Amino acid sequence: MITVHGYTPSGNCWKVAQVLNLVGQPYRWVEVNSNVGESRTPEFLAMNPNGKIPVVVLGDGQVVTESNAILAHFAEGTAYMPPPGLLRTRVLEWLFFEQYSHEPYIAVARNIISFLRTPEANAERLAQCRVAGTRALDIMERQLAGHDWLTDHGPTVADISLVAYTQAADEGGFELANWPGISRWIDRCLALPGVVPLERAA
Amino acid sequence: MITVHGYTPSGNCWKVAQVLNLVGQPYRWVEVNSNVGESRTPEFLAMNPNGKIPVVVLGDGQVVTESNAILAHFAEGTAYMPPPGLLRTRVLEWLFFEQYSHEPYIAVARNIISFLRTPEANAERLAQCRVAGTRALDIMERQLAGHDWLTDHGPTVADISLVAYTQAADEGGFELANWPGISRWIDRCLALPGVVPLERAA
Repeated sequence: MITVHGYTPSGNCWKVAQVLNLVGQPYRWVEVNSNVGESRTPEFLAMNPNGKIPVVVLGDGQVVTESNAILAHFAEGTAYMPPPGLLRTRVLEWLFFEQYSHEPYIAVARNIISFLRTPEANAERLAQCRVAGTRALDIMERQLAGHDWLTDHGPTVADISLVAYTQAADEGGFELANWPGISRWIDRCLALPGVVPLERAA
Repeated sequence: MITVHGYTPSGNCWKVAQVLNLVGQPYRWVEVNSNVGESRTPEFLAMNPNGKIPVVVLGDGQVVTESNAILAHFAEGTAYMPPPGLLRTRVLEWLFFEQYSHEPYIAVARNIISFLRTPEANAERLAQCRVAGTRALDIMERQLAGHDWLTDHGPTVADISLVAYTQAADEGGFELANWPGISRWIDRCLALPGVVPLERAA
């Protein structure tokens, strides 16, 4: 049995659970609230020195970190990861786009507004998030206005990775109705077998 | 023939050239100075709406973006990308670590100090870069103090990706002598066949 160490409201952790559900991989879940320092304890840092969730511990005790690497690991050989070739490369492009150009703005804005609830103290950071997050959503909309999924392979880990925080972008101040292709795609992603929506902020 | 659109002093572009050299893939290089807006022209945005370099145009005109996706694309089936399994996952862990936990601090500090030359105007950002960049180098040192390469597969695209900006970390104010395992590994990376050092700031 594998164990996922994750924080339920985190999109990075949510995406791991959904891909495990999609590929039929059973797992145990250990809750780690990274917003109160639980991913920075000596015990956690011994497991992942980068102090980040999610972390997966395999049956033999090996530790796998980085949410999108975990997705690729468990999707290998399934319909959710294309075989080597340009379609796989398209999936990887979206996974790197997610971590560099999307998550640092969409997820951070959500955390500041709806979890930390410190928008005034982070006004400058939030302004950056709004500009760069809007650009990220515009880029996704270009594809999703005319396609069901982010790549032409059908649903892949790229869709699960990007929908993680996109479904909750409104909690970061982004009005999803402005991106109709994205809005329809979110519904498609959440209708995949075993996928459940991300928990809303309280 | 493929075409790389890149900026010579950029580590993200450097890594693409080095992997193409390593795997024996000929390419044409088109210089794009992203520091003066050349990756934000209408022509460039038509190629990559995210306005980022590097971009590779394949022989059939298809465009591939995201430096680490480009690395994985061209290394597939070579010694620089392990076959599917835990070693490949280790490579992907390092590639995502590079884009999320390393490049935004090591590369950004170098750009502010040695290219934009605006350290005073960016004092707060630089202070964040110093803390997070030091953490990233410490994590690499844990592995490289006792191993020749970042994974147990021998040299892979993970090493090329991480060494891109690490070799120039001193230009961002990081004293590499503090990380002796990293320093030895940089020499090993730069001795790989066809690999040439990143251009220094003027």
